[in-house]
Amino acid sequence: MDEHAKIEELGKPRVVIVGGGFGGLELAKALRHVNVQVVLIDKQNYHTFQPLLYQVATAGLDADDIVSPFRKILEDQGNVFFRMAEVQSVDTEAQVVKTSIGLVKYDYLVIATGATTNYFGDQEMAKNSVAIKSVEDAIMLRNTVLNNFEKALQVEDPVERNSLLDFVIVGGGPTGVEVAGALSELRKHVFPKDYRELDFKEMDIHLIQSGPTLLKGMSPEASQKALEFLQNFGVDVMLDCRVKSYDGYTVTLNTGQTLITRTLIWAAGVSGAPIEGIRKESILKGNRYQVDEHNRITGYNNVFAIGDIAAMVTSEYPEGHPMVAQPAIQQGKLLAKNIGNLLCQRALDTFHYDDKGAMATIGRNHAVADVKLFHKEFRTQGFLAWLMWTFVHVISLVSFRNRLAVFISWTWSYFSLDKGLRFIIGNKREPIPVEETAPKELV
Amino acid sequence: MDEHAKIEELGKPRVVIVGGGFGGLELAKALRHVNVQVVLIDKQNYHTFQPLLYQVATAGLDADDIVSPFRKILEDQGNVFFRMAEVQSVDTEAQVVKTSIGLVKYDYLVIATGATTNYFGDQEMAKNSVAIKSVEDAIMLRNTVLNNFEKALQVEDPVERNSLLDFVIVGGGPTGVEVAGALSELRKHVFPKDYRELDFKEMDIHLIQSGPTLLKGMSPEASQKALEFLQNFGVDVMLDCRVKSYDGYTVTLNTGQTLITRTLIWAAGVSGAPIEGIRKESILKGNRYQVDEHNRITGYNNVFAIGDIAAMVTSEYPEGHPMVAQPAIQQGKLLAKNIGNLLCQRALDTFHYDDKGAMATIGRNHAVADVKLFHKEFRTQGFLAWLMWTFVHVISLVSFRNRLAVFISWTWSYFSLDKGLRFIIGNKREPIPVEETAPKELV
Repeated sequence: MDEHAKIEELGKPRVVIVGGGFGGLELAKALRHVNVQVVLIDKQNYHTFQPLLYQVATAGLDADDIVSPFRKILEDQGNVFFRMAEVQSVDTEAQVVKTSIGLVKYDYLVIATGATTNYFGDQEMAKNSVAIKSVEDAIMLRNTVLNNFEKALQVEDPVERNSLLDFVIVGGGPTGVEVAGALSELRKHVFPKDYRELDFKEMDIHLIQSGPTLLKGMSPEASQKALEFLQNFGVDVMLDCRVKSYDGYTVTLNTGQTLITRTLIWAAGVSGAPIEGIRKESILKGNRYQVDEHNRITGYNNVFAIGDIAAMVTSEYPEGHPMVAQPAIQQGKLLAKNIGNLLCQRALDTFHYDDKGAMATIGRNHAVADVKLFHKEFRTQGFLAWLMWTFVHVISLVSFRNRLAVFISWTWSYFSLDKGLRFIIGNKREPIPVEETAPKELV
Repeated sequence: MDEHAKIEELGKPRVVIVGGGFGGLELAKALRHVNVQVVLIDKQNYHTFQPLLYQVATAGLDADDIVSPFRKILEDQGNVFFRMAEVQSVDTEAQVVKTSIGLVKYDYLVIATGATTNYFGDQEMAKNSVAIKSVEDAIMLRNTVLNNFEKALQVEDPVERNSLLDFVIVGGGPTGVEVAGALSELRKHVFPKDYRELDFKEMDIHLIQSGPTLLKGMSPEASQKALEFLQNFGVDVMLDCRVKSYDGYTVTLNTGQTLITRTLIWAAGVSGAPIEGIRKESILKGNRYQVDEHNRITGYNNVFAIGDIAAMVTSEYPEGHPMVAQPAIQQGKLLAKNIGNLLCQRALDTFHYDDKGAMATIGRNHAVADVKLFHKEFRTQGFLAWLMWTFVHVISLVSFRNRLAVFISWTWSYFSLDKGLRFIIGNKREPIPVEETAPKELV
């Protein structure tokens, strides 16, 4: 960039966006034709397509299929500057964001930090369980699963071996249901070929849901069919059940029953990820910022929040919008328009959520979908829902490169019944050591 | 596997292969129809296609494109058992291999542990430089390069900034040449779009070669053209030059000249990776095992070595065969046949290396090749060599899945001039901190 262009950029009002998830990225892109300078800050240098993280965790896709570097996505957009940094705090008086690499002044601040795993204060659970909120999480889960099976080959005690082969998934929302389904597919089609010496009748998959139905928030038909599909796939779904404790080995349920596993996958909830320096009075239940119908955080003029971190309380959504991609994307798009309105001193537009419905896949040919088309709700379960789910996820990926990669990977898996990405690269969680025995003769 | 089949397997002589590189994997596959039980031990659960590691390091391919899980490759072969373990030592009296997961008895032992980076005893270099011998190395190098550029955006001092932008590559063999070429392509086509605020005229790539030519062992035409191509791409090639020391920041050359870089890529040599317990008398220069013309380690009846770790001294190859894929593959194939011969008490076949030539790519449309076809040598440089290099590497990949992935990725890159895999996932090498300054205003 030449000096002239640089100075011109510096003269514009600056919008600082913290977080490049669905909301932050959409906002940055939608500000293309608004006369502002945009600084997008994220601790990663890539955008993650979170709805498919569970596929990375279960060897169906590789991480590179679902992430896109921010610099690549935004390379043609001259008014955006990306910075890889952790945001430490905000000073709303001085209008400055403090980051790991320095200070950033802003005229408009948009918090789009999304949500983080919610352990409801259970430190032991946070330490011993695995989550699927980031690419690093998903890779670690994949490595852990494969590593456990390698270890199971050397264990003769059946209880010890089961602790490596069994899985407990806590949370019956989309992530929990999708992981349980994917693990059951691996158990059926993939692992028995890889580990001929293990008996996969020994591998149990437990899905624990605190409420009476799976996929809370979807239609009763969707919840019911998801349950049926999972049970047909041999998943032990435990409804109205809660985990009391987990020490890395024994899961104790509220019924007093115990399960033994070295891998508990925690998909039971998320909460907002607020930033130091924003007034505490604006934080609602679930650590989300209370925002008005223009996504402005209450108590501020020029500080906004969008996506999972924002709770816009309306009569239709008394707890804020669902913490999924669509509200974030729609809020990002509208906020770009409203920042334009602010600059021209026009009245601001009000956010109306266009709910397109919800979907979850359980496995090959099996999904459930509640779709809103032309203001009519359309509910379907099974193959058609699975086709829709597949189509929507492929076209929603950020880059053409990712779309192509996922399409090819899925087509391949569909016909070969294989999931090809079964390698252990990077971090894994070493299980609590199996009781020490004398070196064991192999095979 | 049922009990009957299990007992039958256990009654067969057991071949234990340590290492699943080109040689070990080929041997395991070629033993399919030999009446033995095979135990393949590797510390990773996947085979790595090492010739393309440099592409992973330079964001041209993702790791999943060039690795294949052993269990997948060998899933149809009933007589192979894979174990993910580190080999600690061998007891050739008791015929037992000691591993991180227990003891393994053998009737025939084959060491195929390959080679490791050779720092020629320079501990400081081993600590401060980066290598490209494993997938984890390659990913770390990629993450380090990208991370350095992110940091360079925040640095005002030109020397400090240059230390993050400049690269020194030591070693003018195929890896050094290929990395230098790939970095120069990134500098030309990719990074300027990603980092508009940096001036890539500041990014220097130095390639240091101790001898008078690049690609030692290839034809003079190949060496000369490789030099020309690299110079045309703006790589500073320093021939007859050695590195005296590197403290993580300053590279001191034997000429007294110094270069400043936080990233020195060490591609200057490899040496064998011998195992504790094999007689030291059989170790030759470069830590390779002296083997006879049947790949039997001198001094043993039933212990073999193949590939990089084996030095079969002949009049044509007084220092053993080149440490590349082809000798390993050919030795693996012949050894399978010879193990069959041993079992039937037939005479053993003698190894003759079928040299198919050598190739190296410098960048888009530019490669050099010395190919042997029908015992005639054929030398070419430029576009045709590049086409041959591309074709040979795609078809040599282990699985159809990898071939398809690499083909698509390369086709994409060729037409888009893009290298898509520019994300920082997993370990990176944090540079020695830039001198602490007051928090700096961004942009």
